[in-house]
Amino acid sequence: MSKHPSRAIGLPTIQRLPLYLRILREVRGEGVQSISTTRLSEALQVQPIMVRKDLAVTGVVGRPRIGYQVEELIDHIERFIGWRDTSSAFLVGVGNLGTALLGYRGFEENGLHIVAAFDTDTKKIGSSIHGRSVFSLDRLTDLVPRMRVRIGILTVPAACAQETADRMVAAGICAIWNFTPVFLEVPPDVIHHQENLASSLAVLSTRLRMQLDPA
Amino acid sequence: MSKHPSRAIGLPTIQRLPLYLRILREVRGEGVQSISTTRLSEALQVQPIMVRKDLAVTGVVGRPRIGYQVEELIDHIERFIGWRDTSSAFLVGVGNLGTALLGYRGFEENGLHIVAAFDTDTKKIGSSIHGRSVFSLDRLTDLVPRMRVRIGILTVPAACAQETADRMVAAGICAIWNFTPVFLEVPPDVIHHQENLASSLAVLSTRLRMQLDPA
Repeated sequence: MSKHPSRAIGLPTIQRLPLYLRILREVRGEGVQSISTTRLSEALQVQPIMVRKDLAVTGVVGRPRIGYQVEELIDHIERFIGWRDTSSAFLVGVGNLGTALLGYRGFEENGLHIVAAFDTDTKKIGSSIHGRSVFSLDRLTDLVPRMRVRIGILTVPAACAQETADRMVAAGICAIWNFTPVFLEVPPDVIHHQENLASSLAVLSTRLRMQLDPA
Repeated sequence: MSKHPSRAIGLPTIQRLPLYLRILREVRGEGVQSISTTRLSEALQVQPIMVRKDLAVTGVVGRPRIGYQVEELIDHIERFIGWRDTSSAFLVGVGNLGTALLGYRGFEENGLHIVAAFDTDTKKIGSSIHGRSVFSLDRLTDLVPRMRVRIGILTVPAACAQETADRMVAAGICAIWNFTPVFLEVPPDVIHHQENLASSLAVLSTRLRMQLDPA
């Protein structure tokens, strides 16, 4: 079970933790020391009971009338989701999406540091994108162990997704964040998380359809 | 309830429907006419009981020994998630992420057609990106009703996210797909779905932390 906390604890809870963290960091910046369940509930648009359940997984319990200590809660959430220490990541595939992710500032504040990028396009190799060097994909095997990188972000075209993932795994990457639409086959000890825009689109379009046609 | 099927039916189910659809379209392409729960279960790495529950929301029930009729199931899933008819969308904010989304081919096959893009940058206005014209943001009020567009994809910088969302709503957009990290305030009848990379990162890093430190 410990390898799949997302199943044991509930994926929606883990997905909401960064949203609480964002609010908490915001109010901390304003000098606020404690925050009520109600305020968190309103900000995230979830029921108060859900807020309490979500936050309980981090080991923090709110107190009646006072709510949560902001600093303590930030600390516990960061520890729980592993954002206390910075993790290094490599990004493979510097197309539009890869470039967009290299320029995304939200990763750093959440403990993810993309240290370098890789591509097979000789025009891109040797260049620097948003401050990160682009290496030839052939260097992956050498650089993963040397730079002790554990996370690989996959933004290559679908046609070479599996092959590239295999190379990542062979090089020693132990968690793949897959932005391609391909269902990857990876060894059971490799963590695989797929970003799926089609899934999000389904949520949006189902709600839109239900609004127009509430059958 | 009808406005929030994602809560009534379960968000994970809706999110998985496009994944079933992908497999089903793939096997249909190979001439396969029926598919077993087991095969779907293995492909998506979820329990068979979950497959049956997920698919039941579309009104289709599998038959013992035979499984599901591929064509029928595709049809029902597409209807359920509103992908039977193409929806038009405008994209606002043509930075790296906006450009990446304009180039993403997965939308079209899922019934979403981005018909035009908008920006405030005079260097981008008048250009064409991945075949779509970039208009001045000022044209939004005029073009949303004229082109009967209901979905707006928001890929502007965080600092102007709320202001831009307000303009979308004022123009008549009824569903906003928000790729910024900002919690938007929108009227209750406007559908709002936020894409949150931090939430995905939390899932990945929690699993990574648990694997290293299964406390």
